[in-house]
Amino acid sequence: MKSYKGYLIDLDGTMYLGPEPIPYAKEFIEALKEQDIPHLFVTNNSSKRPDQIVNHLLNMNIPATEKQIFTTSMATASYIVGQHSKAKVYAIGEVGLIDALSDVNIELVDEKADYVVIGIDRDITYEKLAKGCLNIRSGATFLSTNGDIAIPTERGFLPGNGSLTSVLEVSTGEKPLYIGKPEPIIMELALQELGLKKEEALMVGDNYKTDIMAGIGAGMDTLLVHTGITSEKDLKQFNPQPTYTAKTLNEWIPNI
Amino acid sequence: MKSYKGYLIDLDGTMYLGPEPIPYAKEFIEALKEQDIPHLFVTNNSSKRPDQIVNHLLNMNIPATEKQIFTTSMATASYIVGQHSKAKVYAIGEVGLIDALSDVNIELVDEKADYVVIGIDRDITYEKLAKGCLNIRSGATFLSTNGDIAIPTERGFLPGNGSLTSVLEVSTGEKPLYIGKPEPIIMELALQELGLKKEEALMVGDNYKTDIMAGIGAGMDTLLVHTGITSEKDLKQFNPQPTYTAKTLNEWIPNI
Repeated sequence: MKSYKGYLIDLDGTMYLGPEPIPYAKEFIEALKEQDIPHLFVTNNSSKRPDQIVNHLLNMNIPATEKQIFTTSMATASYIVGQHSKAKVYAIGEVGLIDALSDVNIELVDEKADYVVIGIDRDITYEKLAKGCLNIRSGATFLSTNGDIAIPTERGFLPGNGSLTSVLEVSTGEKPLYIGKPEPIIMELALQELGLKKEEALMVGDNYKTDIMAGIGAGMDTLLVHTGITSEKDLKQFNPQPTYTAKTLNEWIPNI
Repeated sequence: MKSYKGYLIDLDGTMYLGPEPIPYAKEFIEALKEQDIPHLFVTNNSSKRPDQIVNHLLNMNIPATEKQIFTTSMATASYIVGQHSKAKVYAIGEVGLIDALSDVNIELVDEKADYVVIGIDRDITYEKLAKGCLNIRSGATFLSTNGDIAIPTERGFLPGNGSLTSVLEVSTGEKPLYIGKPEPIIMELALQELGLKKEEALMVGDNYKTDIMAGIGAGMDTLLVHTGITSEKDLKQFNPQPTYTAKTLNEWIPNI
């Protein structure tokens, strides 16, 4: 079995399900920590700040530091800075997105933006959508943190960022560049953050259509763990298959 | 030249352009009035009430009464009542939609709706979109007043109802039934309102892709007037062609 120098690890369905930790998530992360294996938690969640996610993990006794969190908002900010260091951005989103952009000194503007970025925004207004459309029609590059169409909640499935993004897409006729999983961009930016090559790291997640597809798209080896979305039965329909599968993360610990 | 017993007439680009009347719109309507030819103004505008539209026409000296206004909101209300006389509706929209539904005694609800209806809503919120998604996922029939993707304003093109509708469509995976032009439904409901058969009335408008397509779709004769969207040159690319064309409505007055 190949030994990996670093890990990219999904959160929801892999480390926890809402408020509950996934069995062996804690032991898996502790094994990485004991052996000083660099790892990043890579999430399509654009609304939360790293400190909020760290608190959630620590409350479940899963070790984590802010530097180990890589949200799609942070990936989006990193992508923009890599393209254009003085970019002006019109952003629609919650604190996780606004802070991620501000943290890398991106100037937030209402007009004459170089980029329009949209992430989930539960305070969405017509005026925000209008400004997004006007900036895109004036030539701004259109980015979206992720294409998730729905968010599971106790009320049922509520609109996800992919559905809010469609307002700008349908109205302007411009397609966004999505940064989050299943796009490989977020994987490439996460590897850059760890300072590792794609051959050196393993992508671990529970969802074939997001986690595993992103890893495969980035040319990485992948481990699908059957603790969340994709069951053993569901997995059979997909091609290519992940490099490895495991019923729980406990099975993988001897390979670390 | 065939003589028509009734007329369906578009507003924007046919009667007026924003605050300005279109030349000969007044004379055209006066000719219909003098000869007692029944006519309805048929508009994809879902946000305004009939009295607001009448005031706008009267301010330009174009004769009109509230009974002659047929908005896509009124068409949507009429469609629902025709399908299900005790329907419960969850509605997202402005005063024109809410009043049109209330005027035909439709019960407006937040949950357990038989229909979800969306029209342009410049006070859109995430909670409204969430309730729309939840009702559609629970089995409500999904209607949209119109699919217009953008609204021309002095600021530029702002999001139209078709783009807001896409949030519900993308998030739930359900396609809406659109009521407004270019769908023929609004024509059929307008003919019913006039008490005329499709062979007996003429659809008049400036926009091939909405007005003329709706008329053709409903099996009506159509008159494209080149005072708005579709120029003589643009028209050549379309098939089938409208029954008649005119540079201005003045050309048509002798045929009334």
